Amino acid sequence: MSGNFDRREALGLGLAGAAAALPGIAHAGDAPEPRILPPGMSRATFARAVADLRAVVGKEWVFADAGSSVSYDKSYLPDPAGRHFPCGAVAPASAEEVQRIVQIANKYRLALWPVSTGKNMGYGQATPATPGQMVLDLKRMNRILEVDVELATVLVEPGVTYQQLHDYLEEHNIPLWIDVPTVGPIASPVGNTLDRGVGYTPYGDHFLFQCGMEVVLPDGQMMRTGMGSLKNSNTWQAFKWGYGPYVDGLFTQSNYGIVTKMGMWLMPKPPVYKPFMIRHAEMEDVGRIVDAMRPLRVSQIIPNVNLMMGAAYQLSMFNRRSDVWNGEGSITDEVVKKAARANELGMWNTYYALYGTEEMVAAIEPVVSGALRASGGEVLTEKEMGGNPWFHHHATLMKGGLNLDEIGMVRWKGNGGGLAWFAPVAPAKGSETVGQTALAKEILGKYGFDYTAAYAIGWRELHHIIALLFDKSDPEEEKRADTCYREMVTRFGDKGWGSYRTGVASMDLVASQYGTVNRAFNAKIKRALDPNGIIAPGKSGII
Amino acid sequence: MSGNFDRREALGLGLAGAAAALPGIAHAGDAPEPRILPPGMSRATFARAVADLRAVVGKEWVFADAGSSVSYDKSYLPDPAGRHFPCGAVAPASAEEVQRIVQIANKYRLALWPVSTGKNMGYGQATPATPGQMVLDLKRMNRILEVDVELATVLVEPGVTYQQLHDYLEEHNIPLWIDVPTVGPIASPVGNTLDRGVGYTPYGDHFLFQCGMEVVLPDGQMMRTGMGSLKNSNTWQAFKWGYGPYVDGLFTQSNYGIVTKMGMWLMPKPPVYKPFMIRHAEMEDVGRIVDAMRPLRVSQIIPNVNLMMGAAYQLSMFNRRSDVWNGEGSITDEVVKKAARANELGMWNTYYALYGTEEMVAAIEPVVSGALRASGGEVLTEKEMGGNPWFHHHATLMKGGLNLDEIGMVRWKGNGGGLAWFAPVAPAKGSETVGQTALAKEILGKYGFDYTAAYAIGWRELHHIIALLFDKSDPEEEKRADTCYREMVTRFGDKGWGSYRTGVASMDLVASQYGTVNRAFNAKIKRALDPNGIIAPGKSGII
Repeated sequence: MSGNFDRREALGLGLAGAAAALPGIAHAGDAPEPRILPPGMSRATFARAVADLRAVVGKEWVFADAGSSVSYDKSYLPDPAGRHFPCGAVAPASAEEVQRIVQIANKYRLALWPVSTGKNMGYGQATPATPGQMVLDLKRMNRILEVDVELATVLVEPGVTYQQLHDYLEEHNIPLWIDVPTVGPIASPVGNTLDRGVGYTPYGDHFLFQCGMEVVLPDGQMMRTGMGSLKNSNTWQAFKWGYGPYVDGLFTQSNYGIVTKMGMWLMPKPPVYKPFMIRHAEMEDVGRIVDAMRPLRVSQIIPNVNLMMGAAYQLSMFNRRSDVWNGEGSITDEVVKKAARANELGMWNTYYALYGTEEMVAAIEPVVSGALRASGGEVLTEKEMGGNPWFHHHATLMKGGLNLDEIGMVRWKGNGGGLAWFAPVAPAKGSETVGQTALAKEILGKYGFDYTAAYAIGWRELHHIIALLFDKSDPEEEKRADTCYREMVTRFGDKGWGSYRTGVASMDLVASQYGTVNRAFNAKIKRALDPNGIIAPGKSGII
Repeated sequence: MSGNFDRREALGLGLAGAAAALPGIAHAGDAPEPRILPPGMSRATFARAVADLRAVVGKEWVFADAGSSVSYDKSYLPDPAGRHFPCGAVAPASAEEVQRIVQIANKYRLALWPVSTGKNMGYGQATPATPGQMVLDLKRMNRILEVDVELATVLVEPGVTYQQLHDYLEEHNIPLWIDVPTVGPIASPVGNTLDRGVGYTPYGDHFLFQCGMEVVLPDGQMMRTGMGSLKNSNTWQAFKWGYGPYVDGLFTQSNYGIVTKMGMWLMPKPPVYKPFMIRHAEMEDVGRIVDAMRPLRVSQIIPNVNLMMGAAYQLSMFNRRSDVWNGEGSITDEVVKKAARANELGMWNTYYALYGTEEMVAAIEPVVSGALRASGGEVLTEKEMGGNPWFHHHATLMKGGLNLDEIGMVRWKGNGGGLAWFAPVAPAKGSETVGQTALAKEILGKYGFDYTAAYAIGWRELHHIIALLFDKSDPEEEKRADTCYREMVTRFGDKGWGSYRTGVASMDLVASQYGTVNRAFNAKIKRALDPNGIIAPGKSGII
């Protein structure tokens, strides 16, 4: 950057003005060479925008060349037409820098795609919903700002990872647990919560346990939600709702602002933690497991989010498909069952845990075990399953522990690394799982993919978590995966099974299933808050 | 109504057109004589609007004369300047009628103040935030539309009362509990939830247990939130968040739409229910009770919202002040203590309950009792307190039972009936209760009112529930109560203790404490959704 800029900044002239005053020569030698430009933006304008951004964050934190931004291009999703490449990335160090970036974005109509750590695995990683947006990478804003041990709350920035938070609590000997999603170590609590992700402990519904936000609005103003805007308040992380309309939900799965701080509730470490697994032998057990689990979940006798894991999903974590089978089309139930049995697994393996004092756990365990055995399953504990890697995996997660075991599944089909999560919601009823599993197997089978799936059993609903695994290095297979995914969204949607979350390639399709009135409502709010459309156009189908 | 209208309606001309076509003669003999007119509206325009409304709901369901609308004028709040009278009321029978009323309101710029049953006791009942609005009384829309016994969910209209829902469940032998607020029998679950009211069971945070809404938007369109807009969905009441921005919170404590249906989660009736009370002898115990309760609440070992009742509040339920004391100024702690003791009460009496199987309750009880005894309180049960009316009151409420015991307190000071709730929030820490109780006593003392108060202990926060009781038949006392209330709001707010909810007379004052950015944000959304400002102007300080 030329010396002129620094001097002008010192004089308070601002960099946007400086860039405008020196057209053509300002960026000599610094002209960005992006893989793609923002739609409708000239190379010269882009260069000016990049110069302005560099002046805010420093040159080393703007990635506007094909080479420097390559890490932001990658995702495991099928993207046969290449519609999800950003024009680059910018990484601010503070909320104030985010505000200045937003002003620049408004000036140039440069769309920003905010990510916390950009590890949205199977939903698009850091890639934007529409081509040519600039990734706003918040990874440098990674401070744990406050932990209230008595109230069991924390305030964090978006770049904080679950691992970092976990380590902080351990290092400071704070008896609080976090709740992690898949690939927790590298993911961000802020990013996951804003996408309304789900974990494994009693605090598994992440958005439910969020409390208070700081948001940079599309006009550059900074707003604190809940009790956070009250002068001298110390209730920001203690009370979710505040006064007047509750607006935190507006900033989840949306593009109405950039969350720069977020409060969360943490779970007090219980005196006793006991993990369990129920093993069911047959694919057809899918209905009766949920019907046995539902009353225990609704009454909170089992307090945590239960993962009812299909054996093929589990096998994909630690195996290549070719180790298990080499046939054509979907892997058969018989093959899966045999491989599962060799690993002490049934066709469905459901993980839950009890938490409390010794006496409380002892009082609850027989009630739970009795009800679950009546569903035909074997109830197993550390004693029987201690050395089993899948038991270990869930026993770790259900106490807020961390591992990357599930990252292996992206290579089930080949080294190309392909994964798209399809996650339709249903009421927690056996009839629903029977119908959903049958439909998923039918569609996946039609395209030759495997039914690698699980159900997360929430308080009253199911998230069917279907991993569409494919080999992204095979263009035909990538295209086939894309078509298969869209057919699943469409046909499940026709039956009333909408997705709770979806990848950047299918946001518009999913949003269309929620009807025209809702889309118009969301669009009206978007226009009111972000008339220039600079925050994440296309996110959740909102332009 | 003249025969002309009916014929024109039959011809599909619409009534608004008919009214416009017959100026001056249309309403001969039907001209409304309201107590006040909507601000800036002529008598003739008002008459036309009323005629249009009558055509939608029938003449008997529009109350636009001083005599017919008198029941909507009353509230227990201090209103020395008479700034909260409506111009009348209209009571539709269906969501479709609400849509038509909204169209009429847009046509005439007639502000509507929606109420469910209008029993918002101590917050203004049915009266509007600004004068001359028309109450939109939804009491006729009182259907229980669906109960899912397996999922423990219900879908209701706004006019359904807690009593009605309770009776329905009993009559149909459905083992689900509701959670009621104060004066539950006559109040509405929809109205209470939209004001983010609080109850007494583990489902006491009503908005947390709300799931799905149907809303008539200010432009007359109807929207379903969450999963409700998906064709063929059966997950509307099972999954709170839906897809895309979560917007249900926008319709709480606000004026962005009219909720015409709402889903709720209900608590499965546990096999065993055991209510408890802890008695603390001194006003100064206010800190240590909360510090003992907090870890039990944060860990959910005690799962329900605890009411920590001050003795004066309790005495006011079943006594006139003159029965207890006849002195000047605030009632003294000594007097309260003596009267409390005569009724087996301490200065603070905290109610909580355990729920579960016999074995679970037996396992939890010693943990809880031990921790609470260590705070210096006596732990008491049905055995010791069985005949005590206050114990009975809370033992009823903590299992979702109904009573109107607390309605008596409005006459503590005299037959005029005066009550304004002041409800500042704080973190659940003893230091906070010590500070809040001292400040409340100081301000109330300055104005000669009594400290009749309780704390509701939520998951991590306290709602300090201060009943400002006064005699509304005494104009001097009403004015003094108004001034006292405003001083409480202001001085608590300065210390960071904002209200979680407030009455119609103080909405603007409270909103101003949450800062200019938040107010501007709320106003921007208001303008986008309701450009004519027809829904509840002034609600939560939003114009």
